[in-house]
Amino acid sequence: MSTPHGLWITVEGGDGSGKTTQSELLTAWLEEQGRTVVRTREPGGTEVGQLIRDIVLHHRGDIVPRAEALLYAADRAHHVTTVVRPALERGDVVLQDRYLDSSVAYQGAGRVLDADEVRNLSLWATDGALPDLTILLDIDEATARTRLNAADKPFDRMEAEGDSFHARVRAAYLALAAAEPERFLVVDAAGSVDDIADRIRSAVLARLR
Amino acid sequence: MSTPHGLWITVEGGDGSGKTTQSELLTAWLEEQGRTVVRTREPGGTEVGQLIRDIVLHHRGDIVPRAEALLYAADRAHHVTTVVRPALERGDVVLQDRYLDSSVAYQGAGRVLDADEVRNLSLWATDGALPDLTILLDIDEATARTRLNAADKPFDRMEAEGDSFHARVRAAYLALAAAEPERFLVVDAAGSVDDIADRIRSAVLARLR
Repeated sequence: MSTPHGLWITVEGGDGSGKTTQSELLTAWLEEQGRTVVRTREPGGTEVGQLIRDIVLHHRGDIVPRAEALLYAADRAHHVTTVVRPALERGDVVLQDRYLDSSVAYQGAGRVLDADEVRNLSLWATDGALPDLTILLDIDEATARTRLNAADKPFDRMEAEGDSFHARVRAAYLALAAAEPERFLVVDAAGSVDDIADRIRSAVLARLR
Repeated sequence: MSTPHGLWITVEGGDGSGKTTQSELLTAWLEEQGRTVVRTREPGGTEVGQLIRDIVLHHRGDIVPRAEALLYAADRAHHVTTVVRPALERGDVVLQDRYLDSSVAYQGAGRVLDADEVRNLSLWATDGALPDLTILLDIDEATARTRLNAADKPFDRMEAEGDSFHARVRAAYLALAAAEPERFLVVDAAGSVDDIADRIRSAVLARLR
């Protein structure tokens, strides 16, 4: 009897890029294929992680940058060890909203810390764990802003940052994808929902085989 | 006009070693000398740090070792940047209960992580900040246990660890002191309170001049 093959997929992209919509479509499709899907997220994918998430999201701006990066890494260490690895060992598909690329793009490029240091911190936290596939929903600032305005919900503090911040985050994401083309699938998030879902399914199917 | 010279003192040692008593005596003496003393601690020396302290002390055992080390480092980053450095820049004496040597001794030697990695994590967190003086109140396990029993207070989870754990922590502390004899003052905590206070005052006086 062969061991089932787990698959770890992370979804990255700025706010308003459609991560939730695409994750729901991908989950439905995977379940139709008979796969067990573990939907999770960082920060906050565990009980301890929820407490950490509360600190970083509610105190942001009052927390010095290195402390913030360390809190994200702590959440990550606990999450990967207690949720992601056990699910992969069971043969499940882990579909995760944000991972270390978020930290590098937001903390490193968007703020004051060195991107390599932030990446190395996350890799230490997880003993070097990297996803099988990272879907980057790439979106320009104007489109993201329009979508967030249309959603008519209060911005959280990250979303309330200015356009130049978002431009730096986007550029950082694209640089990460260019550095690891095997791991990343970059999709233009301005396309139709169905077209994007098709491209994602193709990339996942190739990795499930 | 010369800038006042701040002094950063950390106090280390196992539970029951008399850290609180000696810190109170040293504070009183420093204030008699006209110095402003900032008493602080890790974890929990800031508002954000209190939230982190709640997580690490109340969820200990449920948190994977790397996450725990990262939480302590996050507390440390925020504390050094927002409390310790500003106080030293004002010329105050910072008298701090526990610092990175605690992390190395407890997390590194006492648990499963590599001591150098834990130390490097803390040094990254604080951009390399090290105290002017670290007072190690060295105590054997039997004496510590007797004192804690006499104190008639409920053990926290760290105190509830077994004697072999305390022996490993003590050995780790002594190794740290041997590696940095200039920074460390090692005092036999089984001595009289007055004798210990005298030795500490001498070491502090030498560094205030």
